[in-house]
Amino acid sequence: MIPDLLSQYASVRRWSERIAEPLSPEDCVVQSMPDTSPIRWHLAHTTWFFETFVLKRQQGYEVFDPAFEFLFNSYYNAVGEQFPRSQRGLMTRPSLFQVLDYRQHVDRALRDLLESGQLEASEADLIVLGLQHEQQHQELMLTDLKHLLSLNPLFPAYRNLPLKRGRFPGTPSRPFAEIVGGGLVEVGYQGNGFCFDNELPRHPVFLHPFRLQENLVTCGEYLEFMQAGGYSNPEFWLSLGWSAVCENGWTSPLYWYSRGSGWEIFTTSGRMPLDPDWPVCHVSYFEADAFARWKGKRLPTEFEWEAACQSTRPTGEEEPAAPFLDNLLQAELAVHPTAPGQGMWGSVWEWTSSSYQPYPGFRPAAGAVGEYNGKFMCNQQVLRGGSVATISDHIRSSYRNFFAPETRWQFSGIRLAEFV
Amino acid sequence: MIPDLLSQYASVRRWSERIAEPLSPEDCVVQSMPDTSPIRWHLAHTTWFFETFVLKRQQGYEVFDPAFEFLFNSYYNAVGEQFPRSQRGLMTRPSLFQVLDYRQHVDRALRDLLESGQLEASEADLIVLGLQHEQQHQELMLTDLKHLLSLNPLFPAYRNLPLKRGRFPGTPSRPFAEIVGGGLVEVGYQGNGFCFDNELPRHPVFLHPFRLQENLVTCGEYLEFMQAGGYSNPEFWLSLGWSAVCENGWTSPLYWYSRGSGWEIFTTSGRMPLDPDWPVCHVSYFEADAFARWKGKRLPTEFEWEAACQSTRPTGEEEPAAPFLDNLLQAELAVHPTAPGQGMWGSVWEWTSSSYQPYPGFRPAAGAVGEYNGKFMCNQQVLRGGSVATISDHIRSSYRNFFAPETRWQFSGIRLAEFV
Amino acid sequence: MIPDLLSQYASVRRWSERIAEPLSPEDCVVQSMPDTSPIRWHLAHTTWFFETFVLKRQQGYEVFDPAFEFLFNSYYNAVGEQFPRSQRGLMTRPSLFQVLDYRQHVDRALRDLLESGQLEASEADLIVLGLQHEQQHQELMLTDLKHLLSLNPLFPAYRNLPLKRGRFPGTPSRPFAEIVGGGLVEVGYQGNGFCFDNELPRHPVFLHPFRLQENLVTCGEYLEFMQAGGYSNPEFWLSLGWSAVCENGWTSPLYWYSRGSGWEIFTTSGRMPLDPDWPVCHVSYFEADAFARWKGKRLPTEFEWEAACQSTRPTGEEEPAAPFLDNLLQAELAVHPTAPGQGMWGSVWEWTSSSYQPYPGFRPAAGAVGEYNGKFMCNQQVLRGGSVATISDHIRSSYRNFFAPETRWQFSGIRLAEFV
Amino acid sequence: MIPDLLSQYASVRRWSERIAEPLSPEDCVVQSMPDTSPIRWHLAHTTWFFETFVLKRQQGYEVFDPAFEFLFNSYYNAVGEQFPRSQRGLMTRPSLFQVLDYRQHVDRALRDLLESGQLEASEADLIVLGLQHEQQHQELMLTDLKHLLSLNPLFPAYRNLPLKRGRFPGTPSRPFAEIVGGGLVEVGYQGNGFCFDNELPRHPVFLHPFRLQENLVTCGEYLEFMQAGGYSNPEFWLSLGWSAVCENGWTSPLYWYSRGSGWEIFTTSGRMPLDPDWPVCHVSYFEADAFARWKGKRLPTEFEWEAACQSTRPTGEEEPAAPFLDNLLQAELAVHPTAPGQGMWGSVWEWTSSSYQPYPGFRPAAGAVGEYNGKFMCNQQVLRGGSVATISDHIRSSYRNFFAPETRWQFSGIRLAEFV
Repeated sequence: MIPDLLSQYASVRRWSERIAEPLSPEDCVVQSMPDTSPIRWHLAHTTWFFETFVLKRQQGYEVFDPAFEFLFNSYYNAVGEQFPRSQRGLMTRPSLFQVLDYRQHVDRALRDLLESGQLEASEADLIVLGLQHEQQHQELMLTDLKHLLSLNPLFPAYRNLPLKRGRFPGTPSRPFAEIVGGGLVEVGYQGNGFCFDNELPRHPVFLHPFRLQENLVTCGEYLEFMQAGGYSNPEFWLSLGWSAVCENGWTSPLYWYSRGSGWEIFTTSGRMPLDPDWPVCHVSYFEADAFARWKGKRLPTEFEWEAACQSTRPTGEEEPAAPFLDNLLQAELAVHPTAPGQGMWGSVWEWTSSSYQPYPGFRPAAGAVGEYNGKFMCNQQVLRGGSVATISDHIRSSYRNFFAPETRWQFSGIRLAEFV
Repeated sequence: MIPDLLSQYASVRRWSERIAEPLSPEDCVVQSMPDTSPIRWHLAHTTWFFETFVLKRQQGYEVFDPAFEFLFNSYYNAVGEQFPRSQRGLMTRPSLFQVLDYRQHVDRALRDLLESGQLEASEADLIVLGLQHEQQHQELMLTDLKHLLSLNPLFPAYRNLPLKRGRFPGTPSRPFAEIVGGGLVEVGYQGNGFCFDNELPRHPVFLHPFRLQENLVTCGEYLEFMQAGGYSNPEFWLSLGWSAVCENGWTSPLYWYSRGSGWEIFTTSGRMPLDPDWPVCHVSYFEADAFARWKGKRLPTEFEWEAACQSTRPTGEEEPAAPFLDNLLQAELAVHPTAPGQGMWGSVWEWTSSSYQPYPGFRPAAGAVGEYNGKFMCNQQVLRGGSVATISDHIRSSYRNFFAPETRWQFSGIRLAEFV
Repeated sequence: MIPDLLSQYASVRRWSERIAEPLSPEDCVVQSMPDTSPIRWHLAHTTWFFETFVLKRQQGYEVFDPAFEFLFNSYYNAVGEQFPRSQRGLMTRPSLFQVLDYRQHVDRALRDLLESGQLEASEADLIVLGLQHEQQHQELMLTDLKHLLSLNPLFPAYRNLPLKRGRFPGTPSRPFAEIVGGGLVEVGYQGNGFCFDNELPRHPVFLHPFRLQENLVTCGEYLEFMQAGGYSNPEFWLSLGWSAVCENGWTSPLYWYSRGSGWEIFTTSGRMPLDPDWPVCHVSYFEADAFARWKGKRLPTEFEWEAACQSTRPTGEEEPAAPFLDNLLQAELAVHPTAPGQGMWGSVWEWTSSSYQPYPGFRPAAGAVGEYNGKFMCNQQVLRGGSVATISDHIRSSYRNFFAPETRWQFSGIRLAEFV
Repeated sequence: MIPDLLSQYASVRRWSERIAEPLSPEDCVVQSMPDTSPIRWHLAHTTWFFETFVLKRQQGYEVFDPAFEFLFNSYYNAVGEQFPRSQRGLMTRPSLFQVLDYRQHVDRALRDLLESGQLEASEADLIVLGLQHEQQHQELMLTDLKHLLSLNPLFPAYRNLPLKRGRFPGTPSRPFAEIVGGGLVEVGYQGNGFCFDNELPRHPVFLHPFRLQENLVTCGEYLEFMQAGGYSNPEFWLSLGWSAVCENGWTSPLYWYSRGSGWEIFTTSGRMPLDPDWPVCHVSYFEADAFARWKGKRLPTEFEWEAACQSTRPTGEEEPAAPFLDNLLQAELAVHPTAPGQGMWGSVWEWTSSSYQPYPGFRPAAGAVGEYNGKFMCNQQVLRGGSVATISDHIRSSYRNFFAPETRWQFSGIRLAEFV
């Protein structure tokens, strides 16, 4: 196990730095809004996790800089006072380069620990958790930098990759095809790998017969909703959703810009014309819900989604072949479902109608790491699937992502459901 | 049915005016915060409901004042533009007396309609809905006026009734006693009477074996939580709850005032010393949840609550003997559970851990009245039971009340649960 | 002096109650915005002044209600804690009738004191100050109730007086006529009557030769400014003024409503068509300044205004024949300058370019009443003249009114100036 | 003239870059609050001034990047739309290095223009204005970077110069010594050099006999005010000042930190113990005014200040020997008045009681550069003198600096005045 963990550690840590490579120190220090964090902060905070929860307990470990404990704590009250989240972007020191040194310092110590063979099982578990944690932050780095760059009137690209853009293989908006019988279904994580505490315990739920649409909702379909007055008619909207539309002046998904008679979208490779066949993305839960109501359909519950995922997956094929990073641009330009069943992950996160709640018997982990999931179980909606910005080995059918219903800067889209 | 409806109409409408009787025109016009409404507005809006949805469709009905459609619409987008909710308290005309005239005008027309025998079934349904609607507003009138009076440094009483205050019959904090076996349980309204659309359809849910505590959490128990540092330790709190504690400076339930070494509470009969045996009241969901976590327990789901209610109710005893209005003061001073099973309604609303979601297959009513429930199904927690301010024939085991988790001005308390 | 003071006391106090007569208890309790106060609060606070500064020092005086000291203090820190200004409208008790009782109680005691012959000179001075204070609040009562009624979608009239409306006698926008030579000029109060501390000491200032326009700027002239793009061109505006235009969406003076192709204004007798010959009113300092810049002129300094007033007044004619209350409607409909020189008071307050500063050697009065003027000398502009809502014996050429530059709910207008 | 202008241009432009030298790209991109700007923005905006107002009019000039016109306009409405001030810190591109390239591009073109001998007089005037403008921004760069660094919990130093710190030569708090006779005094700029439009026209004002204190108020004196309850007693404060104290929780000047029983201050060389002999600095107008009232004195008017400056200056000594940049640390650590009369500039800006108003006959320059001064003449207080951060050839006795009364991040201090 240890050799595996070592190579996994090296690989995950390397990704974070690759994500930051195309960015300048300026890009890495600024915070675009209270919901996002500076890239440099992500790089430091993920490192802080290993230093705080693993290395500090090791005899002889020399802390890189005692101030970092305070500077790069996110929300772990049990660890100590926190630097206010909304002011992360005001901290211009330590510099990006000092943070990269911090990463090297911690990586060296952690590698030594892994190679020493002295690792306790509980420590190995914490390292695995730290890597999963870092993979979550890798996705946030991508969504946060996209948001930051979008605020610049120059609309700079994150990376300019040569495009190998192709047309969609399938037919969008295919009629409802998947049917899942109702009754008692088991949900929650099952297996020997890693999962978060919020995926447990596995337990039965009772589902009414339902169908999920095979394809994600496309930009073209969403444009129809917009042209039908979707953003000016309160009847389609939840009450809070309609308030959000009015207060924020929403008239389209995030990153859409009208240009002449058409639309452009901002992607990580800059602004480009919208393709009606792409899955719609960067919509809030409110918009997903309103679209579904307008269509006479609804969003799936998280359990319907999970049950459908289980029922359509060919045996043994747990691992999706999701694109990542090198393909991020490709992916943003041509995210597509392919064969049925494989289409349920890896292009956009899918809003579900389920609010984020503990499973029956849920117990958070002991100590500070127990603050990871449970304390956010209020006023959040569950998203399922995974997006082009999600690293592939992080995607699984029991994974529960969650965001506040007004969130739009994540790669979040729509799949429709209905009762049979 | 019509004669019954007539007497029911007269009785419900009369209640609203009785509630307002002890109040001055000044008390009736002011709005204490955006969440509350002026009493005069409640009196007018409940009347507007009957005029808009029933009387305006009748040939020959003469509208009392065309401006009222706009002035007293609450949130029915389908009916037309609305006067902004937060400015209801700025409207000093029409006066309280004009609104009472408006009530008489509408009551006369509606009585004529009921006596005419010309009533269609769909109209009768709308009248029943209007009465249920008014009963909900009657509870809000009581909670809103309590809030308004509490802001006055004189802490005036709403009514000064002679107190027949007694001690609690039962033992507070009795150990967990109720056990309800798990498995598939039917929830949702069943019967021939009135229910709201959000109580339907009745459907099975799968429950894990659980227990509910027989008694509500008392002020004395809550004081222990406070003295144990409940309000200064983030580990007990949901993340949003801890933010609410810090931003609002909460250190106790609403309407609690420290006085010397003890506590006083503000009630509708003014300020008085706190009795540790009373059920704790005017806590938010966040406080209820934090208290439960501190105790090592949890809040029940709304389905556990409903299942427990069904299982403990003696046959045929659907109707609780809840106190109301004349007894409001008594009730506020001595709300008490009595025999097991009867204790689940009529003293305080009980926060559940369930967020407010549609039942599988939920369909809102057609037209404007369909805006009644469904559009609020986001970022709200379900409360079950009923309070001292709830009129008794409005209480039933399938009733789903809902408020945002930070809400404290309702009569809301705590019942603990645990898995077996 | 005492008999005079007695009759003056009775007369001034009576006015306040006459102002409130056409209003309902509802009208008297609500606060329309943080800058205004409820009418009932004005009635109580002006009474509080006499009780606190005069009666409480008298042996044997029985306080009406000890709570009122706290409830009706405005901003006198030296007297004690204050009820927060922005929450004055949340206090529904004491009722209007209790406040009227309070007035009677204080009036009776003060009349007894005046008749006793025991009055010390310093006490008489405080009574005179209290009456001047009440006269200022009488003007605020009128501007505050106008603002409150304007927020009501019914646009109710304060009083419906029969209109004896006539055309303007003079020619509006007459060319500049008044010339005042420059040099050293004495400004500040001179005489044996009452004046506020901020009108002293009388002192010389050096003025450059200037002219004031004989007529006030009319609505018709202001409409030209609006039609010339006045509200959409930043070049005419102070930087803060342009921010105020953008943030508040100003496109006209306060209380102007476009209707078809024309304009209506809201007055104390309701909405009515705008007459282009009326002096423009309810403009902020920013609008007055922008209009002047657009015209190629400027606003006068407060000293130019005072010097012009002195130079144009026929001997002995200190007392303007200004309209009041019974004539308020008339006045609002037909405020007009008449003969030159008399036109400088009594129709609208005139914004000056002078910020509100102490005169050289200014000393506030000792004790709590010293908080009357001096502490507001920052970020306020001086207005001179007096308005239709100002009681006539309160108007004098040295009087310095002051408001923040964004203020619009006062009867404030524009007179132009230029250097010769 | 042209050769002089050329060397002056080179010298001023070089200063800006020297100021930025000790900073990282991260330090240069972040905006610490809406009142400040990122350093990189200052570097670009001062360059934009020359490109927009001088170079774009030259035939054959090639614009560096057309987007910069929009990105680096500050508030010149006449030039075009502006990038919102509060979002300057969200723009991570163009990078610091691109902005330095922009500076080189413009400098080369401007040098060519200056050397060409084709320069018109009006263009030379604009270049002189541009240099004065840049010198103002150089001071803002220093105050803005100090503010940014102060928000970092590490309290990093801007520069760590070896300290040659000496004691004060003079006796602090010497009794009032300077006397200036009253009467008519000429104020405003006189001479052949550069001055801003707001220093003209020179004109007479009438002054009452007054005295200015020879020494600036020291930290030790200010500590006495603090220990006497200065920040908790409303009687010393303007009404708006007291609100600022309460809302912001002010208990000391900006950048003061209590540490054990003493105080530390944050300077551009980091945190260090407070020396009671230093002039107090980083106080708002409100604090300066409250201190003066507590002392029984007052702040001088801007004209008293200017008159005193003229009367005490030895003949011919217009040029103060003020410290700058290399000495900034020294200066911050040991700002000191020396001989009488020289003490009136170069250590801290001195708040005056004068609000910022136009001189009689003031005319802003034509065109966009006319937006430089006049439009800010509202709700601002005048400061006189100059600070350790002011470049020495920018200091003169007629110079009018101005800031809103709550401003604290400038190097602003207190000199007391009184009437004789």
